[in-house]
Amino acid sequence: MVSVAEASSIVFGHLSRHSVKTVPFQEAVNCVLAENILADRDFPPFNRVAMDGIAIRFEAWAMGRLTFLIEGLQPAGVPQKTLEDGANCFEVMTGAVLPINTDTVIRYEDLDIKNGTASITTDSIIKGQNIHSQGKDAPLGSVLLEPGTLLLPAEVALLAAVGKHKVQIFDFPAAAIVASGDELVDVEAAPELHQIRRSNTYAIQAAMKMLGWEGTVFHLMDDKDKMITDLKRIAESFKVIILSGGVSKGKFDFVPAVLEQIGITKLFHTVNQRPGKPFWFGVSKGGITVFALPGNPVSTYMCFYRYIKPWLLKSAGVRSDHLEAVLAKDFAFSGALTYFLQVMVRVDNGKLMAYPDPGGGSGDFANLKNVTGFLELPANRNNFIAGETFSYIPFRTI
Amino acid sequence: MVSVAEASSIVFGHLSRHSVKTVPFQEAVNCVLAENILADRDFPPFNRVAMDGIAIRFEAWAMGRLTFLIEGLQPAGVPQKTLEDGANCFEVMTGAVLPINTDTVIRYEDLDIKNGTASITTDSIIKGQNIHSQGKDAPLGSVLLEPGTLLLPAEVALLAAVGKHKVQIFDFPAAAIVASGDELVDVEAAPELHQIRRSNTYAIQAAMKMLGWEGTVFHLMDDKDKMITDLKRIAESFKVIILSGGVSKGKFDFVPAVLEQIGITKLFHTVNQRPGKPFWFGVSKGGITVFALPGNPVSTYMCFYRYIKPWLLKSAGVRSDHLEAVLAKDFAFSGALTYFLQVMVRVDNGKLMAYPDPGGGSGDFANLKNVTGFLELPANRNNFIAGETFSYIPFRTI
Repeated sequence: MVSVAEASSIVFGHLSRHSVKTVPFQEAVNCVLAENILADRDFPPFNRVAMDGIAIRFEAWAMGRLTFLIEGLQPAGVPQKTLEDGANCFEVMTGAVLPINTDTVIRYEDLDIKNGTASITTDSIIKGQNIHSQGKDAPLGSVLLEPGTLLLPAEVALLAAVGKHKVQIFDFPAAAIVASGDELVDVEAAPELHQIRRSNTYAIQAAMKMLGWEGTVFHLMDDKDKMITDLKRIAESFKVIILSGGVSKGKFDFVPAVLEQIGITKLFHTVNQRPGKPFWFGVSKGGITVFALPGNPVSTYMCFYRYIKPWLLKSAGVRSDHLEAVLAKDFAFSGALTYFLQVMVRVDNGKLMAYPDPGGGSGDFANLKNVTGFLELPANRNNFIAGETFSYIPFRTI
Repeated sequence: MVSVAEASSIVFGHLSRHSVKTVPFQEAVNCVLAENILADRDFPPFNRVAMDGIAIRFEAWAMGRLTFLIEGLQPAGVPQKTLEDGANCFEVMTGAVLPINTDTVIRYEDLDIKNGTASITTDSIIKGQNIHSQGKDAPLGSVLLEPGTLLLPAEVALLAAVGKHKVQIFDFPAAAIVASGDELVDVEAAPELHQIRRSNTYAIQAAMKMLGWEGTVFHLMDDKDKMITDLKRIAESFKVIILSGGVSKGKFDFVPAVLEQIGITKLFHTVNQRPGKPFWFGVSKGGITVFALPGNPVSTYMCFYRYIKPWLLKSAGVRSDHLEAVLAKDFAFSGALTYFLQVMVRVDNGKLMAYPDPGGGSGDFANLKNVTGFLELPANRNNFIAGETFSYIPFRTI
């Protein structure tokens, strides 16, 4: 048996080498960037008018001029014009190029415009005001985004701005999600009393989908020979295999033996944690990674968010912050295991407060709808005091 | 001009009546449920064995019996069997139905099994232990999920478990995302010096995509007559129109006039906020909702997350918590507007600490990649002190 820290270090020590694919930039939202994105021009690319109004030479105003003849108009989207007479002004629109020979913009709110003449009605003007200077945000050639960046809408806007209409993202490895257990039936089936419908595989598939990771669902019966044949075939097509069930001490828990038999080397089996103690992890020489999770739904869920999701994202170079939340109520746990406590986290006055709601054990997946994540309570302690902070693994955003 | 509170109350007072559609449950992840989901049987549906081991009658042990003849085996997925002799035991597997005439499960770790006989090696046994009792998590007929629930993986597992292979979700209204401005060119184009590539519409489209909301992108030039024709046509096909640009005081800011001309009633124009002051909002008698946002990218972005996203989710009945974060550094702002300060929020010791990073104004969308959301600093104050908490509008999850 390994500790949670050891299990983490083994899993995160065997990261995937994701391949790369090119997609239209609009499809890249929520994907992980696999290339550097450079500024293809200065940002902004020209001295950009930032308010509707007039552009003047600051010097003219500083010398006492308050009224300016409007010499011309510089709309957005029109090539740069030139102010011919430094005592005049140009009417300018937000987004326009600042006309040559002007250096300061006065907004309409501070003007009185009549008969082609603008009079300034404010006495506070700063040279260069209301101009978004060329290159101020990012100079030509600078790195705007790096590999490992999660592409959210702000990043998509940058891709658009630099003309990156096709972009390289990480292509997460094809994954099989395999349930085992004779008691499991199809979602569309009417189960007999002793049967239940498969749900774990769909929870994992949904969690993967939210990461832009595609998973294909399989179901194996508790038949060792058949399992060998089926898992062999699955291992031919998938680089990642996530199993749920069949890894504990039961008479029909064939998964660990079968995995070793088809060439997956065990790196650990059983972790000093609750739920999820029977968790098995291994890799093959051919580069297949296998997470064999216990079949209790809360165990499956916890292991996915604690180990598999960070494994996937770390493999893509995504930096993610370590999260902590404050235990809102005393909690006692008898056992020398790391305990992943189900908690409902609410933000109270800027603090992540974690309210314990342990539910009815690792089979009670109905309770997961009431909580937002797991608080990781360290092994070898039994009493956890309100106000202490612990690592927090969210599966809902706050 | 309205305050931020007034603008919110007007926008959220004109919610959409989303229609409903039915989809396969695996596709419903990250969608909003539009029906009640009931438990179609007890959860769990039978007294479920929760550990691999043996099932006994507690009374036999309480009377002093430590060694039990194994009368049979109850695997998972097999109809319930019966213990014939109360002095014997049944070997039972996790997930199995508890055999008739047994009431307590002892796990393998507390047993010594030899020659068809199990000897108990622990002296602490509690009646009913290691049994997940029928109906404990949810009784038959109870409401597991309600309309307005965001379907995350835990909820998808519940849909699977109750056999809800087709599920009703809210169908978010078809939305047009319309950029206006002569300076804007296609992402694939090589812009002239005075031109920039369109990016706002793609940021909005990406933000919508993350909500499972589809948006179609349009671009209008600053030509009033053409804009009337084009917006009229758009209004025939879309129930929601989000515009970016053309709402300020510029000579070519035709959007407000055009909207009124095509039958959209203005509910407000200009909000006492920075960025996003020129924000225009209106509705038509035919049920079209129009958000006309300023074209500066940070304004567009802020208005989407502060007004449009909550409008969409509130319309679907999604409850969302009000978030607050702690200002990490003193910040001063001169102006009598509500200021949406760009902040990078990090969790320090369980606290959401907001580090100001205002960037180079509302045109500087490159800065958005450095921050996680906006802190809403109230109007009519200029000095904000480290340690104070303020409303926080995230656009990245922490």
